[in-house]
Amino acid sequence: MAKTKGIEKLLGEEARYCSYGDTAHYLEKPIIFSECDGSFLYDHDGMPYLDLQMWYSAVNLGYKNKRVNKVVRDQLDHLPQIASQYLHREKIELCASISKQMQKSFQTKGRVHFNVGGSQAIEDSIKLIRKVTGKTQFFAFQGGYHGRTIGASEITSSYRYRRPYGHFSNRAQFIPYPYCFRCHYGNFFGSCKYYCVSQFEKLFETEYNSVLDTKTGECEFAAFYIEPIQGTGGYIIPPPDYFKKIKKILDHYKIYLVDDEMQMGFYRTGKFWGLEHFGVKPDVLVFGKSLTNGLNPLSGLWAKEELIRPSAFPPGSTHSTFSSNPMGTTAGLEVMKVLQDKTLEARINSSGKKFVNMLKKLQRKYKEIGDVTGIGLAIRLEVCEKDGITPNRRLTDRIFQAGLEGGLEYKGKKYGLVLDVGGYFKNAFTLAPSFYITDEEIGMAYKFLDELFSRFTTSNRRQP
Amino acid sequence: MAKTKGIEKLLGEEARYCSYGDTAHYLEKPIIFSECDGSFLYDHDGMPYLDLQMWYSAVNLGYKNKRVNKVVRDQLDHLPQIASQYLHREKIELCASISKQMQKSFQTKGRVHFNVGGSQAIEDSIKLIRKVTGKTQFFAFQGGYHGRTIGASEITSSYRYRRPYGHFSNRAQFIPYPYCFRCHYGNFFGSCKYYCVSQFEKLFETEYNSVLDTKTGECEFAAFYIEPIQGTGGYIIPPPDYFKKIKKILDHYKIYLVDDEMQMGFYRTGKFWGLEHFGVKPDVLVFGKSLTNGLNPLSGLWAKEELIRPSAFPPGSTHSTFSSNPMGTTAGLEVMKVLQDKTLEARINSSGKKFVNMLKKLQRKYKEIGDVTGIGLAIRLEVCEKDGITPNRRLTDRIFQAGLEGGLEYKGKKYGLVLDVGGYFKNAFTLAPSFYITDEEIGMAYKFLDELFSRFTTSNRRQP
Amino acid sequence: MAKTKGIEKLLGEEARYCSYGDTAHYLEKPIIFSECDGSFLYDHDGMPYLDLQMWYSAVNLGYKNKRVNKVVRDQLDHLPQIASQYLHREKIELCASISKQMQKSFQTKGRVHFNVGGSQAIEDSIKLIRKVTGKTQFFAFQGGYHGRTIGASEITSSYRYRRPYGHFSNRAQFIPYPYCFRCHYGNFFGSCKYYCVSQFEKLFETEYNSVLDTKTGECEFAAFYIEPIQGTGGYIIPPPDYFKKIKKILDHYKIYLVDDEMQMGFYRTGKFWGLEHFGVKPDVLVFGKSLTNGLNPLSGLWAKEELIRPSAFPPGSTHSTFSSNPMGTTAGLEVMKVLQDKTLEARINSSGKKFVNMLKKLQRKYKEIGDVTGIGLAIRLEVCEKDGITPNRRLTDRIFQAGLEGGLEYKGKKYGLVLDVGGYFKNAFTLAPSFYITDEEIGMAYKFLDELFSRFTTSNRRQP
Amino acid sequence: MAKTKGIEKLLGEEARYCSYGDTAHYLEKPIIFSECDGSFLYDHDGMPYLDLQMWYSAVNLGYKNKRVNKVVRDQLDHLPQIASQYLHREKIELCASISKQMQKSFQTKGRVHFNVGGSQAIEDSIKLIRKVTGKTQFFAFQGGYHGRTIGASEITSSYRYRRPYGHFSNRAQFIPYPYCFRCHYGNFFGSCKYYCVSQFEKLFETEYNSVLDTKTGECEFAAFYIEPIQGTGGYIIPPPDYFKKIKKILDHYKIYLVDDEMQMGFYRTGKFWGLEHFGVKPDVLVFGKSLTNGLNPLSGLWAKEELIRPSAFPPGSTHSTFSSNPMGTTAGLEVMKVLQDKTLEARINSSGKKFVNMLKKLQRKYKEIGDVTGIGLAIRLEVCEKDGITPNRRLTDRIFQAGLEGGLEYKGKKYGLVLDVGGYFKNAFTLAPSFYITDEEIGMAYKFLDELFSRFTTSNRRQP
Repeated sequence: MAKTKGIEKLLGEEARYCSYGDTAHYLEKPIIFSECDGSFLYDHDGMPYLDLQMWYSAVNLGYKNKRVNKVVRDQLDHLPQIASQYLHREKIELCASISKQMQKSFQTKGRVHFNVGGSQAIEDSIKLIRKVTGKTQFFAFQGGYHGRTIGASEITSSYRYRRPYGHFSNRAQFIPYPYCFRCHYGNFFGSCKYYCVSQFEKLFETEYNSVLDTKTGECEFAAFYIEPIQGTGGYIIPPPDYFKKIKKILDHYKIYLVDDEMQMGFYRTGKFWGLEHFGVKPDVLVFGKSLTNGLNPLSGLWAKEELIRPSAFPPGSTHSTFSSNPMGTTAGLEVMKVLQDKTLEARINSSGKKFVNMLKKLQRKYKEIGDVTGIGLAIRLEVCEKDGITPNRRLTDRIFQAGLEGGLEYKGKKYGLVLDVGGYFKNAFTLAPSFYITDEEIGMAYKFLDELFSRFTTSNRRQP
Repeated sequence: MAKTKGIEKLLGEEARYCSYGDTAHYLEKPIIFSECDGSFLYDHDGMPYLDLQMWYSAVNLGYKNKRVNKVVRDQLDHLPQIASQYLHREKIELCASISKQMQKSFQTKGRVHFNVGGSQAIEDSIKLIRKVTGKTQFFAFQGGYHGRTIGASEITSSYRYRRPYGHFSNRAQFIPYPYCFRCHYGNFFGSCKYYCVSQFEKLFETEYNSVLDTKTGECEFAAFYIEPIQGTGGYIIPPPDYFKKIKKILDHYKIYLVDDEMQMGFYRTGKFWGLEHFGVKPDVLVFGKSLTNGLNPLSGLWAKEELIRPSAFPPGSTHSTFSSNPMGTTAGLEVMKVLQDKTLEARINSSGKKFVNMLKKLQRKYKEIGDVTGIGLAIRLEVCEKDGITPNRRLTDRIFQAGLEGGLEYKGKKYGLVLDVGGYFKNAFTLAPSFYITDEEIGMAYKFLDELFSRFTTSNRRQP
Repeated sequence: MAKTKGIEKLLGEEARYCSYGDTAHYLEKPIIFSECDGSFLYDHDGMPYLDLQMWYSAVNLGYKNKRVNKVVRDQLDHLPQIASQYLHREKIELCASISKQMQKSFQTKGRVHFNVGGSQAIEDSIKLIRKVTGKTQFFAFQGGYHGRTIGASEITSSYRYRRPYGHFSNRAQFIPYPYCFRCHYGNFFGSCKYYCVSQFEKLFETEYNSVLDTKTGECEFAAFYIEPIQGTGGYIIPPPDYFKKIKKILDHYKIYLVDDEMQMGFYRTGKFWGLEHFGVKPDVLVFGKSLTNGLNPLSGLWAKEELIRPSAFPPGSTHSTFSSNPMGTTAGLEVMKVLQDKTLEARINSSGKKFVNMLKKLQRKYKEIGDVTGIGLAIRLEVCEKDGITPNRRLTDRIFQAGLEGGLEYKGKKYGLVLDVGGYFKNAFTLAPSFYITDEEIGMAYKFLDELFSRFTTSNRRQP
Repeated sequence: MAKTKGIEKLLGEEARYCSYGDTAHYLEKPIIFSECDGSFLYDHDGMPYLDLQMWYSAVNLGYKNKRVNKVVRDQLDHLPQIASQYLHREKIELCASISKQMQKSFQTKGRVHFNVGGSQAIEDSIKLIRKVTGKTQFFAFQGGYHGRTIGASEITSSYRYRRPYGHFSNRAQFIPYPYCFRCHYGNFFGSCKYYCVSQFEKLFETEYNSVLDTKTGECEFAAFYIEPIQGTGGYIIPPPDYFKKIKKILDHYKIYLVDDEMQMGFYRTGKFWGLEHFGVKPDVLVFGKSLTNGLNPLSGLWAKEELIRPSAFPPGSTHSTFSSNPMGTTAGLEVMKVLQDKTLEARINSSGKKFVNMLKKLQRKYKEIGDVTGIGLAIRLEVCEKDGITPNRRLTDRIFQAGLEGGLEYKGKKYGLVLDVGGYFKNAFTLAPSFYITDEEIGMAYKFLDELFSRFTTSNRRQP
């Protein structure tokens, strides 16, 4: 009671002093959380919320992960601050650790450059590519998301993120993503022969197709920014050979591939990097989010040696006060160590399969559940009309809101459910559970989703 | 010995795996620090370095500040992670605290919007201004520095930061800063009647002067980005009425004033915000760095209500995963509490005066010391030729390097000295000591600087 | 002999004093012409060249057209010069004449604005659209050509025209043109159901498809620049309902249609404007070239009243010294009068049919002749490999060159032949004969083309 | 009477069908002229208007100049049309003639590239500079005018020409022009020691001054666009050594000088090119207007060999249908021939002196006449308040309007007077009489101006 009063006061202050310009007010009624642990957030009344999204995949190792929290605590005791102009052990070891991982994942040598915040790492990658190519134009995907700085918004597909802000000088050319469940070209995977790839290739057929100077062989575009599995776009998994075929074209025309692993890196997809599933090597890779298990905004890029060697990207090329801040590097280093554990990789893949199976069971029950797929613990579920294909945003929103309103029962206790809505039609639940999600928690997720679908879709059941 | 071996190995890994593109390799030989405390950094051999720069003013409250470290440790135990889509108490209270401080400092109501990293806060301010004005052109200062993303580089004066990266679509119009020691117009303060202001005003005299459509009264420029005291530019303090006069012109032509307090905010200058010294109110204020005493890259902007109210800057205007991360907001909130202590303000101003007096004593000894001024604990010293005016970059570098090489004696113990070089001619020591610097440490600084000037300037002494 | 010597001297001066940056040196050996008349150019030796291209359709009424030449001569005698700040009769009457024609052609009221040179008229249209929409992004066609100023190059598909010149801030989004002979999507007209239109429409399906802010309904693109029949692109005629379907989409999203009639206007296609064939009304129409029958670079735009009324496009919106120069307006006015003659329209369509039939006869003879189509007197012929589809640029070039080398016999006299090569693969002859081409001249064309195809394609004949 | 009726009808059509977006409606009541001859325009009633502006210097050789008209008439009879892809004698000879003149004027070898319209020649020069430097930023002058295409508007100072049209990606940095009568810096010529030049030079002093990367020596700016005497800016003549000093700085930092001679070329200033007065050589020179004595929009650029040789500016670099149209080249060639006559040069300078003396006589009579200066036949007169310095736009407009209203008596006949208003404060008469203006016409000008000043400035006479 007293607590609730405190909450009212807080919400009052929020309404007066906080910008609404971030995403907190996407919710009709913003929620205040007070505690977190493992797979759960807790509100001021102590009600637990099962979190199937984990801060958009920034807290892969679970809330308050003991190992990572410990190193951060230790860092506070010996070197919590140090200017980026000077070196500290954790920075170097983290660069080495990621670079070595890249050699393992992609057999390519390179270096790591840190910054903070995903957009700034993207901006650094843009600068690196602009420097090495002398060009400023990029390909990127429809449905792609790379951040909200001016530069990152130029390669992020939604015009909504550009419209209010005037002129964008380097708006990317946005290529349809291989979203086979809703193929841009109306084809069906299996019979399509990667028609989408041939459409991309066609751009290079004559100079009149606008991207290639056929006289010099120069392409107008410096790089292709991809997410290996689209994040905000709805956790869409491309068909197996898609990137291999695309990369061949890019290599032919000397267009770099920049792999944005902000959401999908660090084992979210069951491999260290999302791109490892597709048999191609990135030229630049951008990472962040889960690197510190959410304890610090440390982000960065890796680039292959020829792009980032000291002569190509010399001292002072870019800078940010906190670019290799020790509170971040120490957390990152511990996360890297945790991820070396092969049993964890197995666990992720096994839990992912269980989770998808659970959802497919649900799908058999509700006609409104369209596509259900997953890769590692990056899982998607499209909420549709009864036809199983027409996007149903209203139902999606209702389920999402009801989850946040809590009151879902499990073993006599009340719970909330934290989902995330994404996708081209805002009808996809994009789920990123903790790597340590338990079987019981998966069961709980089933129960809650079943309850919510049931509540808003009376008499829509499929026949058994 | 064993330790040193570890260091060699680390430096070897650094050379192989770390990008050189940040500023670590500005130094001929990068240094690794291992510990920090109060005003000191410690290298691997345990040698203390008196730090007169404190991470470019990001660690105002001293390394390992107990109060701030404590709240961070506590946060780890209850809510170290929470998606920015949801609220948490510390975020709200920090917004309220800063907004209330703005009302105290400038009698203006407004709201706070967070991000991480200074450049991203600058990018948010650019977006906010672009949205409200529909314009993309800005005034900024020669010598100004606002960050290294594409957008921030457009309003940062150095072409060196743009040259390798191709086209910049909104390069600011850079106005000479009132750097009276080296007046851009060759005048002398006292007799100049703020000629620099009248030169700025002249731009609006006729449409042919390029910035004003005299038929509609519309100016081509949306805002003027300032640092109240230039940071990277060399801790230059403008004359007392400069900003008052400039603001009058800006208000007349509806050009917003964006005050970048990244380095100078949070009492660095002896007042909460640097701009408070000059009798003008900002329309937007950008802050970061010392907000968390260097423990987290949290940054943000405050804008007056009409610019940032929910209808003007609605939900989703911008976003960053870590924008109000709890590890940052908790540190920020504690820093705000520490800064409420009026004895601290007194201490800063008193120590600042002692420090400047100490440097002036040095100046009387060495002809090579040109301008010495300070405001609060933001202190500058220009290293010149014997004439006391011609910039002497070589000597500056030598002293800086020698400080880092250590071996300076104080009470029988060896020390290093951490300085920072800035200024238009890279001949200014820009000093930002800990707010808790002791008299003994100021004495130590005197001894070390005396030793270094003496070492590199034989027979240059002034006559007593 | 003496003459030839003169020619050598001239070519020597050309090599020393003339920029090669225009298109004269596209030819291996530039040719000097000395006289012209009707359908013929004459070189220094008096050899006539049958011109099937008429200065890319700028001299529709034949070289040295008596009526147009006469008014120009008269203008020299009374008002050859007058500043565009002042009015003269011919300017007004020409505006009125074109505006009335627009009402006849499209039942729309509007006004005319002059400039000189096609690109400058295009730039004026860009300014007009930018002013009324506040946007700077455009759709344009792959294969489209709108000029070579910086602004016009941004909406012209070939990257070759941008590559050497650095950054282009408003590169259009280039949409595949309905080039059914070589369908971009690999479909066949008849069975395709205008798949290309549905692909364009798909861009507006969700905000993630990058062009529409679905929350506000605002499109990122202000206008679609089209050529009703592509000119440089190869005189490609779109299928009948294409533009009707496209315009419906544009209208829905408030995107303006700018119709570039530089090459196809003034009856080239058998109707006054090319777009009249397709049942849609332009919002803006840009014209030039044949307006003066090649005697003056006068160009201009027509816009519908709401876009160009004085309050929308007020005095001083744009300006060019020669924008309504009297030598141009007088020629334009006479051309408009000549074109009112309905027998001319009939003649164009009848000659066009004969010409196409003649080419189809040739096509039956040579397997290397692919697509042959025409609309009015805008006629195309694709030179292919024996398969009738693979572009054969080498053969095209040989025939083109041989035509210019002359020596083609007709009734015992030697002739040259002036063709023009265009198309996505530089294998299309784009033919634009004089409106007064005679049957004998069409016969002559047949003979020459037969001779040239025969010369370079031994044994390639089709079976009769 | 019947005639007037025709005029009313014409004005009615003008109001319905003509865009107001050009400059015809700068006048309250647009005027229709019907005839022209020598120094005179004639309205529909046959009233002559003494023209002191000659189409902003486009008709230097007088209206209906017999020699130029004759060659145009001849051209109609032999080769009035020829595609620019082919050569014709007049084009080559005109290139040679201008190039040879450049060698005479500036001892520099180079080539000529044609286009039509001043802005398009400027766009070509921008492309040429962008190609050779790889840069897109330019210096230009406050008060400078280079045209109204998007690219030309970026280097033209007035924001009024940009404001309605959205974003301009390459807005020039506008440098104060040496307008000594109203010195930007408040100095006085004689005692100023070219302070304006040292201010320009100061930009290069440190990287913080925003234009130079001092590490690489690279300047952000590719070229400086100048008018040797500002045209629209008010026929302002720079002090003698100004350009020499500026060019030295430009050469040092490898910044090209582009000399826009659109208004001042072809002997307007008493030398062939305006820049010849100032002892410096241009790298690129742009010309137009008077080249054809107003009979054709032919324009062009000359560039020194290293910038424009075929390998630097290869075939197809730019293109315009009418770029070397024969009606223009033939007129240009004859103008060049007329201008070789040395007695004409003498005549221009002698008439210029007489004209300025006449105005100075007037100045002695009217306090409202401020600055009166001239160079060749480019003459300026500032209309001021009685203090002789405060700009008096109202009086300027009244005199201008009254001149156009006619009714001025000379030898019992009624006349009108055509002036032109320019200058930073729209208070300067910028006069460009015919090169063949007679002494009687100068006397007539005196009488008319005396009458008009007298009419609107009662009792303002100076004491004799």
